[in-house]
Order: sequence, then structure tokens, then C-alpha cells
Amino acid sequence: METTVRNKQVILKDYVKGSPKESDLLIVSSTVELKVKPGSSAILVKNLYLSCDPYMGILMGEPNPSTSALMDVFFVPGKPIAGIGVSRVIDSDDPTFSKGDFVWGTVDWEEYSIINPTGSFKIDLNINVPLSYYTGILGMPGLTAYAGFYEICSPKKGETVFISAASGAVGQLVGQFAKLMGCYVVGSAGSKEKVDLLVQKLGFDDAFNYKEEHDTDSALKRCFPKGIDIYFENVGGKMLDAVLLNMKTYGRISVCGMISQYHLETRDIVHNLPVIMFKRLRMQGFASFDFIDRFPKFLEFILPYIKDGKLTYVEDIVEGLENGPAALVGLFRGQNIGKQILEVSRE
Amino acid sequence: METTVRNKQVILKDYVKGSPKESDLLIVSSTVELKVKPGSSAILVKNLYLSCDPYMGILMGEPNPSTSALMDVFFVPGKPIAGIGVSRVIDSDDPTFSKGDFVWGTVDWEEYSIINPTGSFKIDLNINVPLSYYTGILGMPGLTAYAGFYEICSPKKGETVFISAASGAVGQLVGQFAKLMGCYVVGSAGSKEKVDLLVQKLGFDDAFNYKEEHDTDSALKRCFPKGIDIYFENVGGKMLDAVLLNMKTYGRISVCGMISQYHLETRDIVHNLPVIMFKRLRMQGFASFDFIDRFPKFLEFILPYIKDGKLTYVEDIVEGLENGPAALVGLFRGQNIGKQILEVSRE
Repeated sequence: METTVRNKQVILKDYVKGSPKESDLLIVSSTVELKVKPGSSAILVKNLYLSCDPYMGILMGEPNPSTSALMDVFFVPGKPIAGIGVSRVIDSDDPTFSKGDFVWGTVDWEEYSIINPTGSFKIDLNINVPLSYYTGILGMPGLTAYAGFYEICSPKKGETVFISAASGAVGQLVGQFAKLMGCYVVGSAGSKEKVDLLVQKLGFDDAFNYKEEHDTDSALKRCFPKGIDIYFENVGGKMLDAVLLNMKTYGRISVCGMISQYHLETRDIVHNLPVIMFKRLRMQGFASFDFIDRFPKFLEFILPYIKDGKLTYVEDIVEGLENGPAALVGLFRGQNIGKQILEVSRE
Repeated sequence: METTVRNKQVILKDYVKGSPKESDLLIVSSTVELKVKPGSSAILVKNLYLSCDPYMGILMGEPNPSTSALMDVFFVPGKPIAGIGVSRVIDSDDPTFSKGDFVWGTVDWEEYSIINPTGSFKIDLNINVPLSYYTGILGMPGLTAYAGFYEICSPKKGETVFISAASGAVGQLVGQFAKLMGCYVVGSAGSKEKVDLLVQKLGFDDAFNYKEEHDTDSALKRCFPKGIDIYFENVGGKMLDAVLLNMKTYGRISVCGMISQYHLETRDIVHNLPVIMFKRLRMQGFASFDFIDRFPKFLEFILPYIKDGKLTYVEDIVEGLENGPAALVGLFRGQNIGKQILEVSRE
């Protein structure tokens, strides 16, 4: 017997210009049959958690030759947006997945998805962590922090590390990795609550609220009187310009994101680039999917730390698909405290 | 018998603000005894060729925390400026140097210098090249091109390479190295004569005069319809901004210099930095003296090419110490065609 159920979806109305707004997204209701077509090799999943990530803002815009270098597939007006999700298998035509399995991978923003599971990872329930972790510490943000810090930053014990957007999905992990390595770690964030979180809960040596600092250069000089060895860049623009002035010779800047710049009509002016030569800095962009082959090694590395309680992961979970648009666009205003997740369903 | 002779010098009047002008330098006449003090371990040299290099413009300004990361010692108002020179030993209190030896290393801009020769290299006259080559292809610019291209750019056969200030001391070599490796090489320069030189004499695949291109982005798209793998950066500013839009994914930018930006009150705006993340670019500053340990390997590499006539080196030699100020500041207006050298004396 086939059952047809409601399937709410989050649709992109049109290519977004400027910063994404809630009104750029639409909740629509379609239906789905709770059965996959025999011979399709597909799986039908019920989506439990959807990940809200800054790169999704880029995919809401019309692709251009620069942004399209990041991803092959952009969001299509009139269709659901997509991202990483944690889901439960309802039906499967793929022998490697069975009804009741939990998986994570790319899904459309909707209640149920029919997917080609070649890009889906089966979740091992013997690992005793919240399922939502697969959108964060055990998923792409975790791999991003791991590859970005250990492979791009070339960190050494005792070095000074600065992280912008430090309480976000990636920044909070980079800070903790850097502390585990014996670095001096400072983060910036956009509210007192986030700054307190960094110092009191995540073990950062220091932190500041960039919105309350009259002069970022002075704030950096106060936190790093001898300069910065490693800058983990999440925001770009004016922050980068001030950081350049405070880097040490041979410093490294890993460019994980430049969230402050994605949606500006006219991007911030960066004046201080000649410093890259004066100080012989290395500045490198990267994306987690370039390191997907490191995933097993990453899990081997991180799971013992989670088990031993040596890593904390702060999540900001919003419930209900209909609250997805607000959660997603809130990222670009820094509304989230920790990793932003949308809980579509608990089971 | 001690002989005292005239010793003309080029003096920095005061810290330079903005672009260096001839009037920032002064020719003065002092005297020197043509004998070193016994026990001083010094050598007395007659300077033959003095190297004019863009970094010297930075050293003419008042040191600030950014520029002072490049060099320990800046020029001092009221004292001679200094740079790399080729000299003949007149007298020596160091057993490793004898009267009549030729050396290269740092000297003040003057006719005769008394130097501590620990940083001087003895020139092997069995290598049959013009002595002036030790300010260029066999000196720091040569090492800069070698280390910058082979170590910082990670080049591969068949890749596309763009070089700005391509006919300069370093650029002309990088282009030839890239051709030897089987890359597609395009250079930019500031006059028709330089562009012709690049294509007709130095073997570049293509070149353009950036001053005559209405739109740098279009010029780059014309030369690199499929994008740029490697950018050898000598100029910075607007050129870098246009190049970023034309880099391929995983491209590399080696920052050798940003000559267009050193002396601006307000530097050019670079808008396109988020491309570093979208395209996962690596951008790295370097300086030749960080690679000084590679010098013997560099000579082993380059001498056979010179001997076999497979590398060309274009020099722009100005005669007479009194013409030094014009030659040096001319660099910042792109007056030189090829490596700018000041010939103080022929022997």
C-alpha cells in the first residue's frame, strides 16, 4: 500500500541580490509518496535536522564566474534550497541502506526527500552523540575546522591564533583545537553573550565584541601585543584589513569564509595587502569538500576528544521547517549563538 | 703611503613621503683613504655597479610596523642609501679577500666603500658573464625569480602564467623559467617597447600594455580565456583586483612586490578578495633573502642556461653616480626597460 503525505518545502523565490531576507524564501506544501520506485536505486528519507551554513547565502544569488568556482550547483528559483541534513531512511532501493537507518548528506529543505544516496553517509548509532552533531562537529563544519587549522594554518605549539566569527560552527572548534595544541587563542564575535561563551565555556584565552570596539586595530594590539601567527578568517573586509597590520612575519591566514562581504553591493576596502609581501604571509582559501578524503582520519581524531569531554560544541537549534528561512538569514546578521541548526522533526 | 681620494655619495635627505623624487636624494662629496685599518677585518672596495630595486623605495620612508617587517635596517636621513653592488677590492684586512678580487653584496651608494665582508660574495671570474649580472640574473633578482616561481608558485607543465611588471629585473626571468617548463606565459608592462621586448626577445606567448587597456579584466580574459593558474605579482592594487576575477580554482599568487602601492597616500581598493575562498587560491608573500640557502642550487640551475644561451637578461644601465637618483626614482614611474643598474665605474 502506498501512502501519500504532505511534504512542506522551503523554496527560493528568485535569485537574491544583497543580503538574503526571509521574504526571499517561501514555504510551500507539496506531497510525496512514502515509497521509492523499484529500480531507482534511490532512498526516501525523513529529514530531521537541516544545517544552516553561510555558503548557502552565496548559492541563493545568481551564479557568476567567481562564486560558481565554489559549487557546481546553485539554488534554482522556484525550487527548494538544499544543504546538509540528518535524515532517517523510510524506504530504500539501495542495498546499502535499510529502513530505519540514519544518514547525513545533501538534501533539499523539505520534510521528506528522495535522494540518490551516493553522497550520503550512514550514521553509526554506536557513537553516542546527538544526531544533530552530523551537521556540525561530526560533519562538514568539523572537517572544515580540522583541515583548515591543521592543514592550512601549519600551527605550532605556543603560536598566537586569532579567529573571527569565533563562536560559529567552525570557529568554536578551531579555537578548541588551537588550545589543545598549546596556542594562545583569541576570538572575536558580535555580542557580549558570544564573547562570554568563548572565554567561559570554550576555553579561549581572550575574546572581544567587534561591534563595541571603536578601533579593531587597537583591540588586536591589546590582545596580541607581539602579533598574530595565525588568523582563521571567517568574515573578511575591515576585519581582515586590521588583522593584516597585526600579523607576525611568516604568519598564515586561512580563508574559510568572508561572510561580511558576500552580500554587499560594494565590498569593504582592503588597503593593507602589501603587508602580505612585507611580512611574507601565506593566505589560503579552502573548502571542506576539498578534504573529504580526510574524513575517516578526522573522525579518528575527533571522536576520542568528544568521548572524553575535551571538546564542547554549542548548537543553536530552531524548531520547525517554517522557521527555516528566519534561521538561515539570521546567520548573516549574526543572530545564531553557535552552530545554527533547523530541527524539522525529532524522529 | 696612504692616498686620500674623493668619494661621492648619494645621501637620503629626509624620510620620503609619497613616491620618491630625485630631490629626496643628494649627491655629496666626501673623502676616503684607500687603505683599511689593520685589525679591522674590513675590506675597501671600489664600487662598479649599483643595483636599483623597488624595495629601496620602501627603505626611503620612515619605518613603520608593517614595512619594518621586511628589513631590519632602513635608510637614515643624512646618510648614504645602500643596496646591492658589484665592487673591486682595493685593500683587504680579511684573509679571504685580496686586492683585485671582485665581490658582490650590500654597499652604500658611493664610489668607495669600507665594508665588513661577511655578507659579500667573491665573484668567480671563470664564469664568463658581465659583472653587472651579479646585480640581476646571478644576484638577488635571479634568486627571487627562482625561489618565487619554483617554490612559491608550485608550477606544472601546461599551466597558464601571468606576470605583471614582466620586463623588470625579476619578471623577465620568471617568464623565461615558465616557458622552459612548458607553461603558457603572458606579461603586462607599461609601454609598447616593453611589450615588444616580452614577445619578441623574451619568448612570452603574449603581452599587453596595461596603460593602453581600457579594462584590465577584458585584457586578461582575452589572454586567458580559460583563466590563470599562476599569477606572479609585482604591482598590486587594481591589477591584483582584476587578476583575482580571472584566476582558476586552486590558482597560486606569489607576491613578490606591489610596487604600485608602496607610495600611495591611499592605496587602491581591492574588492575581490572573497574570490580567494571561492576559488581556494593560495596567495603568498616572499622575499629572496628568505631563500639565501638555495643560492648554490640556484647557480647550479641557472649557469648552464646562461652558457647555452637559453636565458636572456635585459639590463638598463645608467652611467655615473650622479645619475643614480634619477635612475632609482625612475623605477617607480616604470622608466627602466629591464633590470635598472647604475654603473659607477667600469673597473
